[in-house]
Amino acid sequence: MNITEKYINVRNQTVAFCSHLKPEDYVIQLVKFASPAKWHLAHTTWFFETFILMPNATNYNVFNTNFNFLFNSYYNTVGDRILQANRGNMSRPSIDEIYAYRNYVDEKMQIFLKTTDDKKILDLVTLGLNHEQQHQELLITDVKYMLGHNPFFPVFHNDYNLVKDTNSTNESIKITEGLYKIGYQGNDFCYDNELGAHKVYVPNFEINKYLVTNGEYFEFMEAGGYSDFNLWLDDGWNWVHKNQINSPMYWHKIKDEWHYYTLAGLQKVNKNAILSHINYYEANAFAEWKGMRLPTEFEWEIASLQFNWGKRWEWTNSAYLPYPEFKKENGAVGEYNGKFMINKMILRGASVATSKNHSRNTYRNFFNPSERWQYTGIRLIK
Amino acid sequence: MNITEKYINVRNQTVAFCSHLKPEDYVIQLVKFASPAKWHLAHTTWFFETFILMPNATNYNVFNTNFNFLFNSYYNTVGDRILQANRGNMSRPSIDEIYAYRNYVDEKMQIFLKTTDDKKILDLVTLGLNHEQQHQELLITDVKYMLGHNPFFPVFHNDYNLVKDTNSTNESIKITEGLYKIGYQGNDFCYDNELGAHKVYVPNFEINKYLVTNGEYFEFMEAGGYSDFNLWLDDGWNWVHKNQINSPMYWHKIKDEWHYYTLAGLQKVNKNAILSHINYYEANAFAEWKGMRLPTEFEWEIASLQFNWGKRWEWTNSAYLPYPEFKKENGAVGEYNGKFMINKMILRGASVATSKNHSRNTYRNFFNPSERWQYTGIRLIK
Amino acid sequence: MNITEKYINVRNQTVAFCSHLKPEDYVIQLVKFASPAKWHLAHTTWFFETFILMPNATNYNVFNTNFNFLFNSYYNTVGDRILQANRGNMSRPSIDEIYAYRNYVDEKMQIFLKTTDDKKILDLVTLGLNHEQQHQELLITDVKYMLGHNPFFPVFHNDYNLVKDTNSTNESIKITEGLYKIGYQGNDFCYDNELGAHKVYVPNFEINKYLVTNGEYFEFMEAGGYSDFNLWLDDGWNWVHKNQINSPMYWHKIKDEWHYYTLAGLQKVNKNAILSHINYYEANAFAEWKGMRLPTEFEWEIASLQFNWGKRWEWTNSAYLPYPEFKKENGAVGEYNGKFMINKMILRGASVATSKNHSRNTYRNFFNPSERWQYTGIRLIK
Amino acid sequence: MNITEKYINVRNQTVAFCSHLKPEDYVIQLVKFASPAKWHLAHTTWFFETFILMPNATNYNVFNTNFNFLFNSYYNTVGDRILQANRGNMSRPSIDEIYAYRNYVDEKMQIFLKTTDDKKILDLVTLGLNHEQQHQELLITDVKYMLGHNPFFPVFHNDYNLVKDTNSTNESIKITEGLYKIGYQGNDFCYDNELGAHKVYVPNFEINKYLVTNGEYFEFMEAGGYSDFNLWLDDGWNWVHKNQINSPMYWHKIKDEWHYYTLAGLQKVNKNAILSHINYYEANAFAEWKGMRLPTEFEWEIASLQFNWGKRWEWTNSAYLPYPEFKKENGAVGEYNGKFMINKMILRGASVATSKNHSRNTYRNFFNPSERWQYTGIRLIK
Repeated sequence: MNITEKYINVRNQTVAFCSHLKPEDYVIQLVKFASPAKWHLAHTTWFFETFILMPNATNYNVFNTNFNFLFNSYYNTVGDRILQANRGNMSRPSIDEIYAYRNYVDEKMQIFLKTTDDKKILDLVTLGLNHEQQHQELLITDVKYMLGHNPFFPVFHNDYNLVKDTNSTNESIKITEGLYKIGYQGNDFCYDNELGAHKVYVPNFEINKYLVTNGEYFEFMEAGGYSDFNLWLDDGWNWVHKNQINSPMYWHKIKDEWHYYTLAGLQKVNKNAILSHINYYEANAFAEWKGMRLPTEFEWEIASLQFNWGKRWEWTNSAYLPYPEFKKENGAVGEYNGKFMINKMILRGASVATSKNHSRNTYRNFFNPSERWQYTGIRLIK
Repeated sequence: MNITEKYINVRNQTVAFCSHLKPEDYVIQLVKFASPAKWHLAHTTWFFETFILMPNATNYNVFNTNFNFLFNSYYNTVGDRILQANRGNMSRPSIDEIYAYRNYVDEKMQIFLKTTDDKKILDLVTLGLNHEQQHQELLITDVKYMLGHNPFFPVFHNDYNLVKDTNSTNESIKITEGLYKIGYQGNDFCYDNELGAHKVYVPNFEINKYLVTNGEYFEFMEAGGYSDFNLWLDDGWNWVHKNQINSPMYWHKIKDEWHYYTLAGLQKVNKNAILSHINYYEANAFAEWKGMRLPTEFEWEIASLQFNWGKRWEWTNSAYLPYPEFKKENGAVGEYNGKFMINKMILRGASVATSKNHSRNTYRNFFNPSERWQYTGIRLIK
Repeated sequence: MNITEKYINVRNQTVAFCSHLKPEDYVIQLVKFASPAKWHLAHTTWFFETFILMPNATNYNVFNTNFNFLFNSYYNTVGDRILQANRGNMSRPSIDEIYAYRNYVDEKMQIFLKTTDDKKILDLVTLGLNHEQQHQELLITDVKYMLGHNPFFPVFHNDYNLVKDTNSTNESIKITEGLYKIGYQGNDFCYDNELGAHKVYVPNFEINKYLVTNGEYFEFMEAGGYSDFNLWLDDGWNWVHKNQINSPMYWHKIKDEWHYYTLAGLQKVNKNAILSHINYYEANAFAEWKGMRLPTEFEWEIASLQFNWGKRWEWTNSAYLPYPEFKKENGAVGEYNGKFMINKMILRGASVATSKNHSRNTYRNFFNPSERWQYTGIRLIK
Repeated sequence: MNITEKYINVRNQTVAFCSHLKPEDYVIQLVKFASPAKWHLAHTTWFFETFILMPNATNYNVFNTNFNFLFNSYYNTVGDRILQANRGNMSRPSIDEIYAYRNYVDEKMQIFLKTTDDKKILDLVTLGLNHEQQHQELLITDVKYMLGHNPFFPVFHNDYNLVKDTNSTNESIKITEGLYKIGYQGNDFCYDNELGAHKVYVPNFEINKYLVTNGEYFEFMEAGGYSDFNLWLDDGWNWVHKNQINSPMYWHKIKDEWHYYTLAGLQKVNKNAILSHINYYEANAFAEWKGMRLPTEFEWEIASLQFNWGKRWEWTNSAYLPYPEFKKENGAVGEYNGKFMINKMILRGASVATSKNHSRNTYRNFFNPSERWQYTGIRLIK
């Protein structure tokens, strides 16, 4: 695919997912971390308008000057932005206006892409497409969060029961201690936080080729895992108590039987399916209960060549910190990753909500240890 | 009009107002006290289903058993209810489903009304219609609140500039001290909190026939009214400071000129128009600055026969408390008024958002002293 | 007693109560509404320094210029003040310094009082002494609040079991409807909010000569009073739920038996003793349960000549609002009462914590309806 | 020194510091993280009573059974504990009782220590003494926090101006890449989180032998460091805005000149002295502004043999995570360190508030990145 084909392809995927939404579904924001669909649609478009068309396209007319204020996410460089928590307070611009905005920018982008072969600009377009793929993942999990907190548990679409996958093995792998090279070493796209391949010393370890299942986690619950403080980090224990947690997100005990909400509606928990929607605290407590631990991101990256991954984002026991030679880009693009390098834990792999061709074994995802609305999972090590 | 005609008439008015809304406008709740349009549409319907059809109509099938949970407002008698602050968290049931609910109940109600002449039931229907008229008023002010907090200040409809009225007189009335009869004494509908006509002794007073204008309030602002603590009640002073208030709600100083948001869009403040959107604290501070005071609800009711009213809800200096012979009805209907008789101040009159035939000079409206999203005004007395 | 004798007398009473405190007891503030003893000692002294000595005494040297900032309570006229909630954050000035401040001001006051017979100044001194008597009452209830929330329930002093009084009658009084004169009509000291005697029309009523006992309130608890929403005002019901209330303040069920904390330590609840430490919501719910109601402040004042009172502050069903001819004084003294006339309910009578000669049947006390750390009680009417 | 001499020595140091406190200073808690002096005195005593005397001493009578509830800090194993934020709500037990408790336990400990040579018990005693030394450090910083937030800036003691030290060099050290051994390898006391010496690969780096001074940091402030979002981590930028930070803690601009609060009172900022009281966000932003970075804890440990340290706790760019072979002890002692391994950053070195012989270059201190009430500093690397 050339760049224009890639552009059309990625942009269409976003719209295709949204075609299942009702108008009312586009607007609401329940929590700070989950944005409305309308905002995702506009923000990904704003990226191309602001970083590609405005500085580079001849005679480009901005679609609506107010949109910069509304659809900037966190790029302080680009000016005032609406608070993240207020994104759901706005019924206008309407969905129609947002789609008109997308169409307008898509048209201008396709014209523009024919006129340029500037590597720096094309790299930014590729960044924009990867950025949109990240938002496709968030779209899925944010819509699930909204519908999953509706007391009616509405069905989004029957094709979207994303938590049904099972493991195909129960083996583990032994890795020998030594110096390993960590970080992206290829020639294709990657994020700045993966760059600067560097040596890391890793001791001997043995890591599972499979992810923890609902059934295994259910045993932990039955054994009183949520009420034994010995298993928990202090912040995790406070989180459990303050929120009265006793199961993964979206699990509901109905007439003595555990169900969970999926985008295909409420279903009985399948014990053979891979566990999802647990946060770092829960992952860590479960590992403690098993007498095992979570891998570091280095151990994961080294071993990942020998197991299947890509169904769940996998919590590691590494904090999100810069690689030794990390360099922040200048300008707004430099705000993409570096400034979040505190109070976050690394996840590796990819999930069922991740777009095709948007995963690498050097990819470093990161979330607050309390968050669990992503399709997260647990891989154990000893 | 017979009861069926009245029913159709009131129900249609609600829908007529909503016809100007976009789908996205139906869903959002910005603050606890202002509910989404979707909720108002469903809740007023739920009232007829729950209090008329379910106990009285033969073979009535409930439209959706979950709706009781969703659209109960504050009637504890009728079971669990969704928290008021969460009404905007639900994209489903969709607008289509809500309108289907309305149509279903309206059809059943029209059939049922032909079959009954039970005075008690018909009184409840009348209560339901008055209840819906109250919600029509809230619909207008809640929609204004949502759109007025959108950074784009969208136009709802050009016919809805509700704050443009001016005074036609600058006279005042003298009333002689004496015992007066207070409360509803007619035979038509009124709320329980107006009943129990009773004697009240009132001293001599002189009350204005006109309401305070934007121009007069602007003088108060220019004179530093918002920064002179001497004029304010203690709670009011804290409210001003905590929220950094320096004008009525919806006023914005743009390029050195005061504008306000109306449902017809942003406009320059008309100094001759009657002031609106001030709370009790502001009304009280303004009166203090003028060396005058607000009327009690008794003074207002006595004098109201001699002046025009109906453009603004007028703050009085009376707390919302029961009349001497107040009796709470049994059951859910008894929760309508009595339980709010604390921490509220009385407003008398009616406003431009009030439905036709939904105003009486004995009507007792009540709000927290800090609220100002209604079309509130000030009448002075000495 | 001449004014100097009165001055010495009142000032000594404050110190006498504090003589039972340990140094550690002087400092702590648990909640916004209950100030540390150290602050009461200093603030009452500051009143005399600021309003009497500074403007009137020849060559008076202020004890410490920083004290105005620290010990001003809510007099905005007199300058910046420390936030009420921060009064317990300061270990310094030390108790020794506070007592030195008291001694310094007392000495200067006694010298000054010999030199003046200016009525206006002497009236202000009298106000200062009444002000200090109000703080004596608060000292007792604030110390009780602090010690009563200590998990050890420490004994303050064995003489201070203030909740032991019982009723001596079970009769009621009938009052005939008519116009009555309300407000202070004597020549001695009273507060500005009692002035402006005025006519009020009151219907027939019958009021109890006795106060509700612990035993009667216990029946209400046993009958499920705290879990029947029908009995409660809406704000009261929210207060019960949010705070999980199921008894008056200071009551603790220990091994199936109800105890309460008194300043003489933890004791079994005496069912014959008069109930105390309930708020307006509880008083109102109890009355509702009994099929009776609380008196208005007018009914109370009229009937008070015919029953004994003075053990509990009695909740009335009147909001705290100005009398028709209420006039706020100029300057700081004008901030004493008027600015609190919102969101408060009136209490009449006096309590066991009230200083001798600091009670009148026209006295208007006022608190938020949720507060219950005072010695409050219930008198019923029908 | 034998163990008894060590015991007496450490215990006396705590009391010696407290001898400068006034009774009022022992009681107050301003923020969750800074405990009252009274609590530190009791909690360190409780440690010896609970972990040494109760399980091991013959016929030991617990001083007061309620003290376990009060003076347990975070050992869930040992039972219910009072919330950390409520430690300042208690005037009782009084200071006298706390000192009686100390004396009682000290006497019993000295008797007991004569009777045992059980290595496991003596190791626990040593842990208790190190624990008390940690609390001595907290005592100093917590007292400074309380007095430093008093509007009078009281002098604690003239000997305690702890922020006056200057640097003696401006050189840097080059370290060659390679595998280094990290962690405690000696035979004396260390904490569990230092154990498990292990290999870490570290690239070439050059690190300063000196710490950042007030003068250098002042340049950062003058250059607009606090208002340039490019320099800040996202959480840090939010912290700056929410708290309106524009200088290190305890700095106050008075009449155009910067002062800071020291335990010897308010003083002019000495530009040559070593900077203190900045948090991780500030340290990181400063490094960014200099075009340098903070060391990792491994770089720091390796280089520490070649520079002087011990005046400030030095922020590193390492998150607090377990070493590869970290093993949590069983029981309450196992709660000492491991459960805090999330959302904290590592500090290395020691500070002027650290007790003599309580520092090692393998010691791993850790705090939330927003905290700055410790004597923290910055060492730069490139």
